[in-house]
Amino acid sequence: MTRPYNYSAGPAVLPEPVLARAAAEMLDWHGSGMSVMEMSHRGREFGEIFAHAHDSFRRLMGVPDNYKVLFMQGGGIGENAIVPLNLIGRTGKADFVVTGSWSAKSLKEARRYGDAQLAAPQAPERAGEPRYVSIPPQTAWAVRRDAAYLHLCGNETIDGVEFFDWPQPAALGAPDVPLVVDVSSHILSRPLSFEGVGLMFGGAQKNIGPAGLTIVIVREDLLGHALPVCPSAFDYATVAANGSMYNTPPTYAIYIAGLVFDWIDAQGGVQALEKQNAAKAALLYACLDGSGFYRNAVEPQCRSRMNVPFFLADESLNEVFLAGAKEAGLLQLKGHKSVGGMRASLYNAMPIEGVQALVGYLQAFERRYG
Amino acid sequence: MTRPYNYSAGPAVLPEPVLARAAAEMLDWHGSGMSVMEMSHRGREFGEIFAHAHDSFRRLMGVPDNYKVLFMQGGGIGENAIVPLNLIGRTGKADFVVTGSWSAKSLKEARRYGDAQLAAPQAPERAGEPRYVSIPPQTAWAVRRDAAYLHLCGNETIDGVEFFDWPQPAALGAPDVPLVVDVSSHILSRPLSFEGVGLMFGGAQKNIGPAGLTIVIVREDLLGHALPVCPSAFDYATVAANGSMYNTPPTYAIYIAGLVFDWIDAQGGVQALEKQNAAKAALLYACLDGSGFYRNAVEPQCRSRMNVPFFLADESLNEVFLAGAKEAGLLQLKGHKSVGGMRASLYNAMPIEGVQALVGYLQAFERRYG
Repeated sequence: MTRPYNYSAGPAVLPEPVLARAAAEMLDWHGSGMSVMEMSHRGREFGEIFAHAHDSFRRLMGVPDNYKVLFMQGGGIGENAIVPLNLIGRTGKADFVVTGSWSAKSLKEARRYGDAQLAAPQAPERAGEPRYVSIPPQTAWAVRRDAAYLHLCGNETIDGVEFFDWPQPAALGAPDVPLVVDVSSHILSRPLSFEGVGLMFGGAQKNIGPAGLTIVIVREDLLGHALPVCPSAFDYATVAANGSMYNTPPTYAIYIAGLVFDWIDAQGGVQALEKQNAAKAALLYACLDGSGFYRNAVEPQCRSRMNVPFFLADESLNEVFLAGAKEAGLLQLKGHKSVGGMRASLYNAMPIEGVQALVGYLQAFERRYG
Repeated sequence: MTRPYNYSAGPAVLPEPVLARAAAEMLDWHGSGMSVMEMSHRGREFGEIFAHAHDSFRRLMGVPDNYKVLFMQGGGIGENAIVPLNLIGRTGKADFVVTGSWSAKSLKEARRYGDAQLAAPQAPERAGEPRYVSIPPQTAWAVRRDAAYLHLCGNETIDGVEFFDWPQPAALGAPDVPLVVDVSSHILSRPLSFEGVGLMFGGAQKNIGPAGLTIVIVREDLLGHALPVCPSAFDYATVAANGSMYNTPPTYAIYIAGLVFDWIDAQGGVQALEKQNAAKAALLYACLDGSGFYRNAVEPQCRSRMNVPFFLADESLNEVFLAGAKEAGLLQLKGHKSVGGMRASLYNAMPIEGVQALVGYLQAFERRYG
C-alpha cells in the first residue's frame, strides 16, 4: 500500500524509512533491551543517541565552533519569550521585522521583557486579501544601533513568505546588532548562513521530527545575559553548561531527529535537499501561476519553498476541493484559519512525486470546476 | 526473548503492550495513512487522540470538575518556575516543605518570583549519610496564612521519601492556602486526593510516557493570576483557554500517554495498581531490612513505593554489584549521583516478577560477597 501524501504545515510528514526504523527499534534499541523511551537520559545508551543527533545536526547545518546547539522544549511560541528572556537584557531593546503571523507574534511577546519595536513598516491589514505578501525593502528599515538583537522569521509558515538571504546588520547601519532568526519551518531545507547571526531557533515538527523538541543555535558571546526572571530550565547558559541535560530532554524526539539526520545524509545533505526543494516549489508555483483558477498572492522573490498558501477563485468550492483531495490521498491541505484557503507544505520529507500528484489533482479539479 | 527489567528512575520502563502497539501503528494510525507524529495537532485524527488521553486521565485520576487538566512542556524543573509564575502573584508569598532534592530545588527556583520560604525545618546535611530520610512533623510547620500556596513534593524521586496523605491547610492554621503538589514520580501509582489541593503537576517520564510531556491539574479559581513576565506558552489560563493547543503540544508523547492510560484500565485502574505497587515495595523493603548487607535509611512511614534508594554495606562493591546486575538482566540500578549507592524504581510498568528477580539477585550477591 502506498502511503498518502501529507501536506500538513506541522507536525508534518516524516521520511518513511525513519518511521520504519523507529517501529523496528521500538522494543529494543540496538540490543539494549530497552525502548529509547525507557532509557535514563544520563545513561550510556541515550548518551550515544544524543551525541549522534547533536553531532549530525552541527555537521549538516555547518554550525561554526563559536555557537552552542541546545536541545530544548517549548516550541516556537515558547522561544518567543525565551529569546528575549535570555538576550534582551544586554541593552533592554530589541528590533523586529514583521513579515507574517509568526514574527508579529514574536514582537508582541517580546514586549513583556523590554523595549521591543518594529524596525520596518508592517503591512497593513487588507480586507479579504492576505496581509503579508512581501518583505519590506531594506531602505525602509531603521534598526537601532543599541538593540540587543534584530529578530526576523526566516520562513513564515502561515503566510508563505521566506527570506533567501539574511539582511546584514552592518549594511543596515547597526553592525553590533546580532540577528535572531526563527528558522522553524525551513531549517535544513537548504544551507543557512551564520553571517551576522547571533541565534537561530526552530521547533522540530517540520523538517526535524516530532513536536516537543526545539533546537536553539546560539553564539557563545550572547550567553549569560538572562533576565533574573528567566526560568532555569530555559536559561541558555544553564542549558549549555549542562549539555542540554539540565532538565530531562525530550529523549524520544531527539532520537527521531537523529534518524531524520541520517536520512538527510543519505539524500546527500542539505545541498541536495535544496535542489529537490527548489524543484518541488517551482513545479507547484508554475501550476498556480499558469492557472486562472488558483492564486498565490506572495511576491515571487520571497515565495516560500516550504509553505505554499493558495486560494481557489471560487471559495465556495473549498470543501469540495478538500474532500476530493482526501479521496485522492492528498491530506491536510486546508489553509491556516487566519489566512483561509489552502496551504501545501513541501518539507524535506515530501517527495517530488507528492508535488506531481498535487499538481495533477489541481489541474483535474480546475478542468472539472473551473 | 524476555526483555530485561529496567529500574530507571526516569525516563523509565513502559508497559510492553504499549510499546508493541506504538510500533504496530507507527506508519499508519487507524487507517489514517499517517504516523501520529505526522498529524497536525489541529486535525480530526489528533483531536481524537488528544480527547482520548485527556478524558482517560481525568477519569483514572478522578479529577473533580472544577480543575483543568493541561498538557504542557518543560518537565518538573520547568514547573518549578512555571508554578510561581502563575500562582505566587496572588499574594507574593509561597511556602515550601522540603523533604528531598526536588522540593529543595522548587524552593530555590521560586525565590526568583517572590517571597518563597520554608514552612518546616529542613533536614541538615549529614556527612556520609543520606540527608533526607523523613517528613518533619506537622507540629513543627508554620504556614503563612497569606501564602499563595504551600508546595510539597509528593514523592521525592531521588531520596525515596513519599507523602501518603497530604497535610491539610486548615489543620495547619492556613485554611485558604492551596497545596501545590509535585506528583511527578507517583502519579497514577495509587489514588491521589484532591482535598486541599490547588494544583498537581508531573513530568510524564515515570508513570505516564515519554519525557517531554508535563501534566498540570489546576483548580480553576487559581487561573488568571500570572505575573506579567510569565511566557504566554506557560500561562495556565492561556493554555486552558486553548485546550492545551496554544502552542503545538508534544503530540506523540500525548499519544503514548493515552496508550498507557488504556493499559492502566486493563490492569483494573489505579486502585488495582496501588495493591500491586504496595506488594512490590513491601517485598523489596523486607529484603533490604532483613539483611545486614543492604540498607535503606528512610523512616518506614514515609518510604516511597516508587523509588527505593539503598546502599551496600561495602561500597567498594558497587561496580561489581552493577555489572552483575546488568549481566542478570537488571538494568539502571545506579543511585542518583547526589545520594550515591543504588536505587530501584518500581513504577507501574515494573511487574512483581521484576521485583522478585531483583530480590533474588540481592540475596545471591549477599551470599557471595556478604
